Amino acid sequence: MTPYFVPLGGSGEIGMNFNLYGFQGKWLIVDVGITFSDDTTPPGIDVICPDLSALKSVRDEIVGIVITHAHEDHVGALHYLWRQLKAPVYCTAFTASVARRKLGEAGLLDQVPLHEVLPGCELELGPFQMEWVTLTHSIPEPNALCLTMGDARVFHTGDWKLDPHPLEGDHYDDRRLMELGEAGIDFVIGDSTNATQEGWSGSEAECHKALLEVVAKQTQRVAVTCFSSNTARLASLGDIAHETGRRVTVLGRSLYNYLQTAKSTGYLRNFPDLVPTSDLDYLPRSEQLILATGSQGEPRAAMSKLAKGEHPDLVLDADDTVVFSSKVIPGNEKKLFRLYDLLSQKKVQVVTEADAPIHVSGHPCRDELRWMYRALRPQVVVPVHGEARHMAAHAELAESMGIQGVRVTNGDVLALSIDSPTVVARVQTGRLGLSGSSLVPLSDRALSERRALADGGLCSLTLVLDKKARLVSLPQVQFVGVPTGDVESESVVVDLQALIEEVMAEQNSRILQSDDALRDAIQRELGHALRQWLGVKPRQLVQIVRI
Amino acid sequence: MTPYFVPLGGSGEIGMNFNLYGFQGKWLIVDVGITFSDDTTPPGIDVICPDLSALKSVRDEIVGIVITHAHEDHVGALHYLWRQLKAPVYCTAFTASVARRKLGEAGLLDQVPLHEVLPGCELELGPFQMEWVTLTHSIPEPNALCLTMGDARVFHTGDWKLDPHPLEGDHYDDRRLMELGEAGIDFVIGDSTNATQEGWSGSEAECHKALLEVVAKQTQRVAVTCFSSNTARLASLGDIAHETGRRVTVLGRSLYNYLQTAKSTGYLRNFPDLVPTSDLDYLPRSEQLILATGSQGEPRAAMSKLAKGEHPDLVLDADDTVVFSSKVIPGNEKKLFRLYDLLSQKKVQVVTEADAPIHVSGHPCRDELRWMYRALRPQVVVPVHGEARHMAAHAELAESMGIQGVRVTNGDVLALSIDSPTVVARVQTGRLGLSGSSLVPLSDRALSERRALADGGLCSLTLVLDKKARLVSLPQVQFVGVPTGDVESESVVVDLQALIEEVMAEQNSRILQSDDALRDAIQRELGHALRQWLGVKPRQLVQIVRI
Repeated sequence: MTPYFVPLGGSGEIGMNFNLYGFQGKWLIVDVGITFSDDTTPPGIDVICPDLSALKSVRDEIVGIVITHAHEDHVGALHYLWRQLKAPVYCTAFTASVARRKLGEAGLLDQVPLHEVLPGCELELGPFQMEWVTLTHSIPEPNALCLTMGDARVFHTGDWKLDPHPLEGDHYDDRRLMELGEAGIDFVIGDSTNATQEGWSGSEAECHKALLEVVAKQTQRVAVTCFSSNTARLASLGDIAHETGRRVTVLGRSLYNYLQTAKSTGYLRNFPDLVPTSDLDYLPRSEQLILATGSQGEPRAAMSKLAKGEHPDLVLDADDTVVFSSKVIPGNEKKLFRLYDLLSQKKVQVVTEADAPIHVSGHPCRDELRWMYRALRPQVVVPVHGEARHMAAHAELAESMGIQGVRVTNGDVLALSIDSPTVVARVQTGRLGLSGSSLVPLSDRALSERRALADGGLCSLTLVLDKKARLVSLPQVQFVGVPTGDVESESVVVDLQALIEEVMAEQNSRILQSDDALRDAIQRELGHALRQWLGVKPRQLVQIVRI
Repeated sequence: MTPYFVPLGGSGEIGMNFNLYGFQGKWLIVDVGITFSDDTTPPGIDVICPDLSALKSVRDEIVGIVITHAHEDHVGALHYLWRQLKAPVYCTAFTASVARRKLGEAGLLDQVPLHEVLPGCELELGPFQMEWVTLTHSIPEPNALCLTMGDARVFHTGDWKLDPHPLEGDHYDDRRLMELGEAGIDFVIGDSTNATQEGWSGSEAECHKALLEVVAKQTQRVAVTCFSSNTARLASLGDIAHETGRRVTVLGRSLYNYLQTAKSTGYLRNFPDLVPTSDLDYLPRSEQLILATGSQGEPRAAMSKLAKGEHPDLVLDADDTVVFSSKVIPGNEKKLFRLYDLLSQKKVQVVTEADAPIHVSGHPCRDELRWMYRALRPQVVVPVHGEARHMAAHAELAESMGIQGVRVTNGDVLALSIDSPTVVARVQTGRLGLSGSSLVPLSDRALSERRALADGGLCSLTLVLDKKARLVSLPQVQFVGVPTGDVESESVVVDLQALIEEVMAEQNSRILQSDDALRDAIQRELGHALRQWLGVKPRQLVQIVRI
């Protein structure tokens, strides 16, 4: 029997990773991630999960959910989607600790069978045999899976890079990778994030050196922001505090959470004790090292509040330094430039990745991909985890090494047959937005109505009619989100009321007795009048009450 | 008497330039620009103009409006704001041609006294004497103004760079700049856009070379997008068409407009005749050079439609090449990455500024600023035209040359006194958004209501009450922009109706007889119920009709 690979999220996009393997009628899920909204998503939606409609008919055949590591785009949707899956979850200790916090907050901790596995272990779930292979990344315990499904051997990389000095957590085991290659790997399903970047992604140790240099030359307060889950970076900053005679204060819940998770699972053993914000006043600025959340300019995070001077516990002073030890995720440039500006207005020095090599990516650049494929010697590479251009560059790189590159996108059902790996079918995919407590398809009509409301506001009109369809009182007109000008609007309301009475007088009794027909007639005229007056047409809400 | 300088737009931001000079009770306006919305502006607003409230009391004392050049951030607000200014407008021919098109579309052409001046001329407007000094930029006829107000001599740079080979339009006149310096310049009010960039901005001629190289090696169709107003780039592309045996087709209205404007004012004399889109099918792909609007990924522009395969006149094929001969304006990264992706999915090769030096900036980098200040030898530099970090870098650069740097921001009234240039007052500034046909303060309550509507939608509730405040019919409940799910919502409406009846039964007659009190009571309970059910609270619109 042929095994199948089906990406439902993450192939053709960065984020929302959700992968399926099918074999002998059973299904294995690898990663259950979220992605975040951008300027294409409807307003009011922050978090987006994959649509799992394709799994409806095979729900009882899911043997397990494997989470490769603890980043949001791999584990973040577990508590939103688990009720649709109801399968046991497998991951290593650090990931489990993060998952438990999320499941706990969602009240699911008692229901989800969450199994911790050891790095490097072997696990059998139904017809799927897998070895967990430790790699390096920007978070502890990034695991690849070496899957055996009958004759087929698939190396699912998860997120990885080759970091010779990862500072925290295990090193990658190059010997084991070569052994696996010798034993024979048929398919690599692999991370494409940096496949357009030549060279190597660089090591946390180099990053440490550059960060130390930046901090060492400051004579006043230094505040650093980085991705909260980047435990190696936190370790680095803890060491730098020691090395530069500074003490560490943390601002922001997500940093606290990850620090705690890391410590509780055996990481960050040398991380210094924190100075509470209440004691900061007793510490000279030259001895302060602040770690703050919000490296992407998130408006409610600590760094944004510091820049705006709105943080309740700390005010930055002139000649302080703020270090962004992170990359700028595309789409966040403008938000971040605004922060740099606010800080520069306060005469706070801003140091970013553009000024010094104080960030390294967690994903493999082209030389790392080449190294890996030389070690694993796969027959076929299937790029995933990337946008189209990343996956295309990845496939071309594989082909330039004489390896077959197979192009898939979310929803493709790829038959993992060595002779002819082929997309044999397509299944439904999509995006569900978290609206309050429910997951709503992003194509939902209500969400596109929100855009119309946002662009033009709403004009509500209420008519109360008697049995003979005569107006019982003046039509009520109300505007929401329509800039009318106070004086002007009163006269406009009077005009609109007159218009409605006129329109009603022109209708025959068949139309007057039908809510739909009357509403249509009124909306036509009302829309016209509103556009004349405002230059735009707000959404109309015509309500007819018959008494 | 001391002259004053008052920036009302463009100082502390890129865009929306609006500058005032005051002397002997009279005022001179320099530039009337717009800026565009971003993720901080309320939804439904695209175009933003400066708030001119500060000018209300001196409207009759405005002696003229000078437009330095034809970019949107300098001339784009003229037709929106002229009615508030009603002063004569002065600019050179190319700018006048662009301004006339805008004024014509707004029906203002007959009302606005628009005077063309010659490059290099001298002009006297009330107490303001000025020499127009031609510089180089990315559009024809970029003018600096050398203003004389009594004893004070101010060099207002406008947008500029030093391009030794500008390809189109006049060269800058270094001798004249040095003469002005020798005659004595007190203040420079100057462009800060690239003040954080070391070196020189580069020449259009270098850009031509790189573009030619890129196009020459393609064997199929090449489509290039650039800023439509960049006449030098268009000239370059026209030459490249000759040099590579291709013929030119233009897609997009704004390119047509600027081509026409340039030709009608004496530029682009060698630009080839266009091939109409209807004839493209008769031309081999290898001989096609397409110029398309939309270098910033604007969704309605030609390049976006080409990438999506939605352009009515042209479909790109595999192995075609798309060249983005432009920079990525911060905030547009994600939009552009999506285009690159769509193109790469069609196997269209994408070439951007990251791949080859096919764009040069139109603003001075640090070496150009240094050159200019060596030539002009000003006493004081006042950085404008930039965000805070650009203006700070500019002031520091001036100071490093022994020139006083003075920091201003929109609304500052700067006394141009050589002995002590000081901000002596602040006037009102702000931003007005174009909503339909009216200009609305971005702080207008209606605009913030739009955000609430966008985030959570609206729940409308209508009650019809008789004289005794009894419900005459069932309360009407309607949702707009609230994803309710069809089946669920019917039962919810019934529940909400019951809730309203319950709430009304609990109120005393004083509350029942007051619309406001009753509305408050209902909104409280309704809000609670909605949050329980949906997890979010939509905007409520409770309408009470008494009959």
